[in-house]
Amino acid sequence: MNGDADELEFSVPGFMAGATAAGIRYQGRPDLALMVSEVPATAAGVFTTNRVKAAPVLLSRSHLAHSTARAILVNSGIANACTGEPGLERARLTARMTAEAVGCRAEEVLVASTGIIGMPLPLEPLAGSLPTLVAQVRADGWLDAARAIMTTDTVPKIQMERIRIENSSVTVLGIAKGAGMICPDMATLLSFVVTDAAITSGALQTVVREETLRSFNRITIDGDTSTNDTLFVLANGLAAHTPIESLTSPAGEVFRQALRKVLLNLAKKIVADGEGATKFVEIRVVGASRQIEAVRGARTVANSPLVKTALFGEDANWGRVLAALGRAGIDFDPNRVQLYFGDVKLVENGLFVGEQAEKKASEIMSRSAFSITVDLRQGDAEESVYTCDLSLDYVKINADYRS
Amino acid sequence: MNGDADELEFSVPGFMAGATAAGIRYQGRPDLALMVSEVPATAAGVFTTNRVKAAPVLLSRSHLAHSTARAILVNSGIANACTGEPGLERARLTARMTAEAVGCRAEEVLVASTGIIGMPLPLEPLAGSLPTLVAQVRADGWLDAARAIMTTDTVPKIQMERIRIENSSVTVLGIAKGAGMICPDMATLLSFVVTDAAITSGALQTVVREETLRSFNRITIDGDTSTNDTLFVLANGLAAHTPIESLTSPAGEVFRQALRKVLLNLAKKIVADGEGATKFVEIRVVGASRQIEAVRGARTVANSPLVKTALFGEDANWGRVLAALGRAGIDFDPNRVQLYFGDVKLVENGLFVGEQAEKKASEIMSRSAFSITVDLRQGDAEESVYTCDLSLDYVKINADYRS
Repeated sequence: MNGDADELEFSVPGFMAGATAAGIRYQGRPDLALMVSEVPATAAGVFTTNRVKAAPVLLSRSHLAHSTARAILVNSGIANACTGEPGLERARLTARMTAEAVGCRAEEVLVASTGIIGMPLPLEPLAGSLPTLVAQVRADGWLDAARAIMTTDTVPKIQMERIRIENSSVTVLGIAKGAGMICPDMATLLSFVVTDAAITSGALQTVVREETLRSFNRITIDGDTSTNDTLFVLANGLAAHTPIESLTSPAGEVFRQALRKVLLNLAKKIVADGEGATKFVEIRVVGASRQIEAVRGARTVANSPLVKTALFGEDANWGRVLAALGRAGIDFDPNRVQLYFGDVKLVENGLFVGEQAEKKASEIMSRSAFSITVDLRQGDAEESVYTCDLSLDYVKINADYRS
Repeated sequence: MNGDADELEFSVPGFMAGATAAGIRYQGRPDLALMVSEVPATAAGVFTTNRVKAAPVLLSRSHLAHSTARAILVNSGIANACTGEPGLERARLTARMTAEAVGCRAEEVLVASTGIIGMPLPLEPLAGSLPTLVAQVRADGWLDAARAIMTTDTVPKIQMERIRIENSSVTVLGIAKGAGMICPDMATLLSFVVTDAAITSGALQTVVREETLRSFNRITIDGDTSTNDTLFVLANGLAAHTPIESLTSPAGEVFRQALRKVLLNLAKKIVADGEGATKFVEIRVVGASRQIEAVRGARTVANSPLVKTALFGEDANWGRVLAALGRAGIDFDPNRVQLYFGDVKLVENGLFVGEQAEKKASEIMSRSAFSITVDLRQGDAEESVYTCDLSLDYVKINADYRS
């Protein structure tokens, strides 16, 4: 079951969500979201690999050592990054205030922030808004929360999957905000997933890590990595099935597939809503000798400014794709490569097929979503990376920001 | 002595150069350049690291195994890349035709091409133009040659140094074309350097490699690497000094310094003329624990689309610089970092200094050239990478190309 915003009721047994306009930096729009689990939930997280980690990342990482959580508090507007010990203290106080309002320990609160770098989080608007926010969280508040964490996104991103484990219905629901970077320093990717599945802490952390690699780590807007990137997954175990201990069990596999769908669809939505993006493009590398080479090749093509400007210009510029692949540091024979735009073959054995094919490829490129496939014909490994074009609006948006 | 186009006579004893409009792809502008040494010259070369190597790169690499050369033939308009065995055969025939016209062996001819990928070099215009071209090469034909190899460059790039070795005057003269990419697939960096210095083949190849790392490998326009990048250095030994065998000898050191100046100045000129560029920016990383980490940090900042759009917008966005540094995969403590725009300190111990400093930094950014310095305070290693901004014109130029 695939979640479209207006068709389904977004809810997960035992979880509540809500949002409010706290006025942290934006005025007149929701900028503070709260997600609460009725019972302590098994919690897993994945954070930015950036060496410069924002205060909420540092704090939540330490809180996750306890493996359970009751609440997630997220603000947009100010990232609380590059704020040193004062920023960390603000994050701690935020968690403490939330814990008091929700009625749990501070260590059971996870926090995340997105927005301007270099400014510490102001505590007054948070303190003023938290009681109201806690009072108004509700089972179907997820779209509100998805809207409150937006910065430069143009649409809220929400995804839900329902599965059955041992005759119990289990729901996996996720929200995300994009690496839109429509305002600068706001490149942050945030995603929060809740489920009533019962799963051990170790299994949850493992599956979250592995599926992050297959979803959020397979997309790129511009290759920049935020200081605040965060994914939290909370599993409250309220579903009636036997707790999942092994990911290779049938229940573990069913849960993994549901989590994968939620994460991958959220990831794709983020790319489609990339700043200034007019095209959603899947870069597939097949026939690679190793999976890691397929990923590296696809990622290098997906990040190439020359490829991305050609996507924007609807120019079937296969030469730029080959040139990007050539600098990816992977093993292949240029004289064996086949290259397709959609299902149109443009390159055979490393050579251009002809202008007729290029015309057909240009038609493919006029669509808002399509794929580019490179077959290295070296082996069996294949991987996809999802990207968008580099448009005039990307530059306008990112150059004009603070003026 | 530093070479400015109008002030000096550009010439090197024993070398001649010239150009003609062969009509290879462009009409009514020079697109074919020839450089000739009166005597066999010691030759060294550095080529693209791209796995997809153009036919002229493959051929010239094999010719360089002979260590001496008499001529360099370069065309713009068509890159003869991704053209397979037919392209290689065209390159071979080009070298043979040039050898016949100049009066040397085909193995003594080096070739280079820049332009559209995927089209083989047409032989007729070359065959028709070569006799005229050979007849008109002259000692002071270097600016003509520099103009003929341009594709999307807006100015020819030429640089000359005169040094003394053992009371002999020695000249090092270089020309280059940029990674302008104003037309796509034309991202190629080409540079050709000639000198009358006497130097052994081994020493020449070593110093050329080392100094390439310090010059052309320290610049970036957009991180894409061409299939055709080529640097040739020819030393004809006509100067009267004892041949340089060791690079650590006084003569070797003097020669290295001259070569470094020529290569570094050509490299900087390429960045300043980058496609759509409005800013020339030096990214300095100092206080790194190792040189390789300083380079990696500087390069990651220099390639970051978010940093480059901020440069275009004259936005002193220090947070983007720190975030880029954080994902560079280098070792540093974010809480020790100092960051400067020009001589204005914006970040101290990882924390923002204040709005007054940001105003001063914005003034610095209104200049057409400035530096950004990050002090990691880890060690003594420092390196610079030169970059330009990512402007609206970059996207326009690279999206609109083939229409």
